[in-house]
Parts: sequence; C-alpha cells; structure tokens
Amino acid sequence: MSAPLLTPAELEAQLRAIGAERYHNLHPFHRLLHGGKLSKGQVQAWALNRYYYQASIPAKDASLLARLPSTALRREWRRRLEDHDGDGTKPGGVERWLVLTRGLGLEDEYVTSLRGLLPATRFAVDAYVHFVRERTVLEAVASSLTEMFSPAIISERVSGMLRAYDFVDEATLAYFTPRLTQAPQDVEFALGYVTREARTREEQEAVLGALRFKCDLLWAQLDALHHAYVSPGLPPPGAFVP
Amino acid sequence: MSAPLLTPAELEAQLRAIGAERYHNLHPFHRLLHGGKLSKGQVQAWALNRYYYQASIPAKDASLLARLPSTALRREWRRRLEDHDGDGTKPGGVERWLVLTRGLGLEDEYVTSLRGLLPATRFAVDAYVHFVRERTVLEAVASSLTEMFSPAIISERVSGMLRAYDFVDEATLAYFTPRLTQAPQDVEFALGYVTREARTREEQEAVLGALRFKCDLLWAQLDALHHAYVSPGLPPPGAFVP
Repeated sequence: MSAPLLTPAELEAQLRAIGAERYHNLHPFHRLLHGGKLSKGQVQAWALNRYYYQASIPAKDASLLARLPSTALRREWRRRLEDHDGDGTKPGGVERWLVLTRGLGLEDEYVTSLRGLLPATRFAVDAYVHFVRERTVLEAVASSLTEMFSPAIISERVSGMLRAYDFVDEATLAYFTPRLTQAPQDVEFALGYVTREARTREEQEAVLGALRFKCDLLWAQLDALHHAYVSPGLPPPGAFVP
Repeated sequence: MSAPLLTPAELEAQLRAIGAERYHNLHPFHRLLHGGKLSKGQVQAWALNRYYYQASIPAKDASLLARLPSTALRREWRRRLEDHDGDGTKPGGVERWLVLTRGLGLEDEYVTSLRGLLPATRFAVDAYVHFVRERTVLEAVASSLTEMFSPAIISERVSGMLRAYDFVDEATLAYFTPRLTQAPQDVEFALGYVTREARTREEQEAVLGALRFKCDLLWAQLDALHHAYVSPGLPPPGAFVP
C-alpha cells in the first residue's frame, strides 16, 4: 500500500515545487534587501549574520566528506571544500564574504569573532551541520539542493543591490560571481546522486524532507533578521546594534 | 595575568546579573502573554511551540545523565527525569503540558506530531540538547540554571493568564504548580555544583557563558513566536496558522 516510486523527473519536479513554496527568495526581508529598502546598518546585520552561514559551509562539507564511501564522491565534495576554503592562491567563498562585510564597514575581527551574531542564526546554521553529521548520506546530499534555486536569487540580489545602494559596488559583491558557475555544477552532481540513489519511495520522501529542512533553516535566518532589525526591530540582548 | 577567581557569592551574583539582563521574562511576547493581550490562537501557538521544549527536556537530561560520573550526580539527574517523564502513576511535566495544549483546544496528535512547529523552535531546542551532549558536564549543569529565574515568571504567568483569559483555568495551568517547588530544588543542587566545581576563572567564565547561551535560546523561541504570530505575523511556510 505504500506510494509508488517517483520517476527521476517527478522527483525533480517535487523538489522544484518545494523551492517555489519555501525558498527564501520569497521572504519579505529579501524583497527589502534587493529592492533597496534597507539602511546600511540593516545590510550590515544581514552580511554579519550570513557570514556565520558561509563560514560553516566548509565545516558542513568536511563533515559530509568524512562520511562518503567512494573516491568519486569524496573528490566531488573536496571540490566544494576548495570552492569555500580556497586553495591558498585564489580566495574561497569565506574570504570573499569578508570582502563584502569589510566593504560594508565591518571589521574582520568583529565579524569573525561572532560577538554580534543573532543566536537564532547560530541555532539554524548549527542545525544544518548537525543534520549533515547525523542523517543519512542521501539526506545530507539532498540538503545541498537549495542551490537549484540560488542562481536566480543571486542575479536578482547583485543587480538589485548595485542599483539600490551607493555603499555597495561590484568589488564588494564579488562573492557571488563564482557562485553563478559553481552552484549549477554542484546541483548537477547532487541532483543526479539523489535521483539515482533514492531507490524506495521512503528514501525519496527523505530527500524531499531534507530539502524542506534546508529551506526552513534559510527562512528562519531571515525571520530572525527581520524581527531584530526591521519589524519590530528588537535585537536580542548582546546582538549587533547598527 | 588572568582574572582572579570569583568567590561563590560573586559567581552567583554574576549569574543573577545575566538573568536580570537576558531572561525571557523581559521579552515583549511574555509581557503580551501575561498581560492578556494575545488572542487564543496566539496562546495556542505559544503552547504548541513550547511543547517541543518541554518534550525535549527529559531527552536533554537523559543525555546529561549518561555522562555523569557518580551515583550522587546521577541520582539527582534521575529525579529530574522523573519530574518530566512521570513515574507511571503521577504525570510528569510533558504530560502536564499536553493538559495545557488540550485545554487550549489543540489535539494531542497534532501537538506531538510537531507538524505545526516553527523551525526556529526546533533549531533552538535542538541546540540545547546538542550543547548538553557536547560541552563539559560543568557547562551542561550550568545551562540548567535559568531555573533560578523561573519561579518569578511562573507566578506572574499563572496569575496573569488566569485573570486575563477566559479560555484558561487552574486545571489547564496545572503544569506550573509542581515546578514552583521542583525548580528551587533543582537550582540549589546545580548552583552548589557549579560554585564548587568551577575551580579556575576560565571554568567560571564557561559557567557564565552556558547560562548566557541558555537565556539566548529561550529568547530566540519568543523572537520566533513574536515574528510569526504578533508582528509582522508571518508564520513560515508549513507552520501552525491560528
């Protein structure tokens, strides 16, 4: 009586439907950010909090790398680590994010100390790292699939922010440019993996659940920013005050 | 050149100062809740989300119990488990919380399924369980010390809610009565433990940090409720809608 297996195309369609309903491009905070409606202090708060997410991605990928069973899989995930941590000559994503926070007038020491971080950011990001450590490899790979939706949001973000804010320029937004080519490469691999390796409907449901979880944690980060810095604008005790 | 050791009285005073600055009785959502300013749907959202916290407390205590090194410590922590899980004759805290959600008109099946939970609640509560598993026993014990501040908030909550809402009565709020005697007993033990066992200033700072962390996660839960159900009142996709 269990539901029938989805075809790869059906599974992909259901994954895309989750993005259409839950991806954080739909969050009011992103509309404000991209539409030029935020003050510099509010953009600083976003970049400061998002730094912790960026800085945790390679930790997340390293945790997954450590659990992967084959050379081919580990090589793919090692490439992701290199994208985020750099190779010592070209900077990785974490360093490029600091170019952004620096461009917005925040000191590296302050940003990397995490002193001003919203606790909710920490809880959501740490939930991602724990998920990747504790769930199946299939679910861990599936949770990376929000990148299916990221090229659209990145183009929108970069063009919107360049147009709207005089305190942002192409150099400060340089984080995003390599992501436009890296993300589709990541997705091609991960989508192929989950459509191939989810061999029962239960596994396919676990894949869908992992993507929902990931959308939820991106959304929760924007909820926390919106509450603390937009409406009602009450940063919790100890958090960054613009 | 490290800072001098605090006396037990100084350490306790610093712990109380953290509560005075960061305990969630100061959060606007609690003022609304206790002051009778919330609709029944908003009170339902609070009780539904808080259920996950209550239900995770014995899991948290069991994780700590498993790490405790002596009979005396394990016996104390076993008592806490019994307070929350009951003994098969008198109900524990988790069952008593379901009396509250039921009294508010929510079905047990819906509440315990966690289907309507705010993701931010899950992330904050899970962060607590992970903290207790991963940090030192000293920090894990210290993180329970928010109970130093709970008898005051409980009296305020019970009297405020009974006065303000015709949809709650003494029976639905019966969760709280035993906590008025259990919490001081818990605190006496935990405060004695941390003042005795934190033997360096670094350990004392870790104790203070653990209490700050715990206050932050209680606060983050109310931030999420406030954002989703008060202002601007935007529940994230999939969450309970009153």
